[in-house]
Amino acid sequence: MMEFHLVSNGRMHLNEFSKIAGRVAPYVDFIHIREKHRSAQDITSAINKLKEESIPSENIIVNDRVDIASVEGVRGVQLAYHSIGIKEVRKHFPQFRIGKSVHSVMEAQEAETDGADYVLFGHIFSSNSKPGLMPKGVEALKDVVDATSIPVIAIGGITPQNVHEIRRTGAKGIAVMSGLLDAHDPYQMAQEYKKGWVI
Amino acid sequence: MMEFHLVSNGRMHLNEFSKIAGRVAPYVDFIHIREKHRSAQDITSAINKLKEESIPSENIIVNDRVDIASVEGVRGVQLAYHSIGIKEVRKHFPQFRIGKSVHSVMEAQEAETDGADYVLFGHIFSSNSKPGLMPKGVEALKDVVDATSIPVIAIGGITPQNVHEIRRTGAKGIAVMSGLLDAHDPYQMAQEYKKGWVI
Repeated sequence: MMEFHLVSNGRMHLNEFSKIAGRVAPYVDFIHIREKHRSAQDITSAINKLKEESIPSENIIVNDRVDIASVEGVRGVQLAYHSIGIKEVRKHFPQFRIGKSVHSVMEAQEAETDGADYVLFGHIFSSNSKPGLMPKGVEALKDVVDATSIPVIAIGGITPQNVHEIRRTGAKGIAVMSGLLDAHDPYQMAQEYKKGWVI
Repeated sequence: MMEFHLVSNGRMHLNEFSKIAGRVAPYVDFIHIREKHRSAQDITSAINKLKEESIPSENIIVNDRVDIASVEGVRGVQLAYHSIGIKEVRKHFPQFRIGKSVHSVMEAQEAETDGADYVLFGHIFSSNSKPGLMPKGVEALKDVVDATSIPVIAIGGITPQNVHEIRRTGAKGIAVMSGLLDAHDPYQMAQEYKKGWVI
């Protein structure tokens, strides 16, 4: 079992993103709206487009904007270091599955202590989304997996060809942006990721 | 009675803003944190700085970020056209005093219908915060006041010298950014606004 997250890239038109999300939905577990520079209205509109593509609220995660996630009744929020803290979100919005984006063992342990349901760790491999930043690599991913008892989802530069390396660390799954969003055939590519995991 | 709002300008260091807010607090009714480009952590930290300056949560309003307002337990939220809608906020966060920023009679009437507690209308006079944009003028302000039955707060280029023009329209009060924030002596300037209103 590979937990499979698709994350929006903050650049693509949200109509197009929603169409791709709708296409890969049979293979994907969670769709993240991660649009740091867009307004509440735009993010709300993106969630509604996902719903029009028959993606249930249960599978939608909103980055940072806990208020929009609450009003729209989606399943989860993904928090960054600059977001509202995990404990505060848990206390005031107990309905959410809470993910925290982390970049070290220490941050991952802190997220677990604070009550995160899972962590997103990366970026693992070099990727176009993070040019110039040193990738963490699979060894660091394994360190995070070994140091925590909550699920670890890997992000950054993951392809169908290297996804088996992620599996070997004991990570619970992967999150993908350009790997699916820039694919010629996202539906087939989603299948390739699934196949790559079990090779 | 003049309802007096101080609004942060999105640029000033929030330590400095909080100090000025603390100084003018005896004359001001509401302090708005309006920091569109800052993170949830930064906005939260600004609210805490205001509290350290002995400004009660009852007098603090957060722009756009309903989640932060909720977690921090402040009095109100100020919504723009790109924010979560008034009805949704009212339904999911019934505790808030809700202000809506509007730019026309039609938007003001819509805000009233949707259940806003007040509208912020502007900008009235030419101001450094909105260079190049035509000010609405006091006639337009009077049109909004006459067309709605909720309080109208005027914003934009208001000074102790022209504040009596605002009063004459029937507006409930004023919101000020640079008028107080850039003043040599904000405390005395706050008094000048109060005096100007009743002249």
